[in-house]
Amino acid sequence: MTGFFFRRAKQRDLEAIMDLLADDALGELREECNATIPSCYLDAFKKIDVDPNQFLMVVECRDIILGTCHLTLMPSLTFQGGLRMNMEAVRVASFCRGQGVGQWMIHQALELARRKGCKIVQLTTDKRRVDAKKFYEKLGFESTHEGMKFFL
Amino acid sequence: MTGFFFRRAKQRDLEAIMDLLADDALGELREECNATIPSCYLDAFKKIDVDPNQFLMVVECRDIILGTCHLTLMPSLTFQGGLRMNMEAVRVASFCRGQGVGQWMIHQALELARRKGCKIVQLTTDKRRVDAKKFYEKLGFESTHEGMKFFL
Repeated sequence: MTGFFFRRAKQRDLEAIMDLLADDALGELREECNATIPSCYLDAFKKIDVDPNQFLMVVECRDIILGTCHLTLMPSLTFQGGLRMNMEAVRVASFCRGQGVGQWMIHQALELARRKGCKIVQLTTDKRRVDAKKFYEKLGFESTHEGMKFFL
Repeated sequence: MTGFFFRRAKQRDLEAIMDLLADDALGELREECNATIPSCYLDAFKKIDVDPNQFLMVVECRDIILGTCHLTLMPSLTFQGGLRMNMEAVRVASFCRGQGVGQWMIHQALELARRKGCKIVQLTTDKRRVDAKKFYEKLGFESTHEGMKFFL
């Protein structure tokens, strides 16, 4: 019994999600979080919301959003046509880090991936987040790949 | 003038694409490529084909398929709602490696990402592919992330 539960994010959760994305050493440098949510985030939310391959997850406890992650199902030819799940934007509220929220959330994501028939769950984590790599390794992820980015 | 051109893959290209995926030190261990294409690949192809966020690219020269890559557009909240492009399954036929096919293909993918309004193009490359990392770095990718995988 953790008292946590998860669900698909609704538009009214966007402010709380944006707070989580900005409440982060790297995130605060790149997100613009004002009292009014800029339209760029709202537009992105709508694209995520209408796409059955996207699952923007929020984790709640007593109606307070404690965590979020963005899951994407990706059909794929490799690994014998193995469906993949990509994870992005994994965040836990700073006031409750180290209390198992992240671990619980990742377990739910893996369980969802199993139910969807995925063969692989994949993510990249910024090399500056040294603790994050260990966190994912503890949960069974293997750091077999280089994660490469090109900013346009 | 390279003589190459690219297009969205059609079902009739699947055999050639499967040959490319298996014609690879890591791929040959995990793909099952017979005279008849197993249904797992056909099912995955159909899922890719009907999804407007997926672009399975083939590169041709004189009607011969020389390369392939699988591009996925991913809406995203992070980086101010920045659309991402994910690249998977990048392969060049062994008989024409080192002749600029891969470089040309990646340039086309980046150009496509620009036209679609992406902010980030991302991929992971197996750490056992030591040359691949250098190849992507030459093209402007930065190896800023750990690429982590979980096999279900």
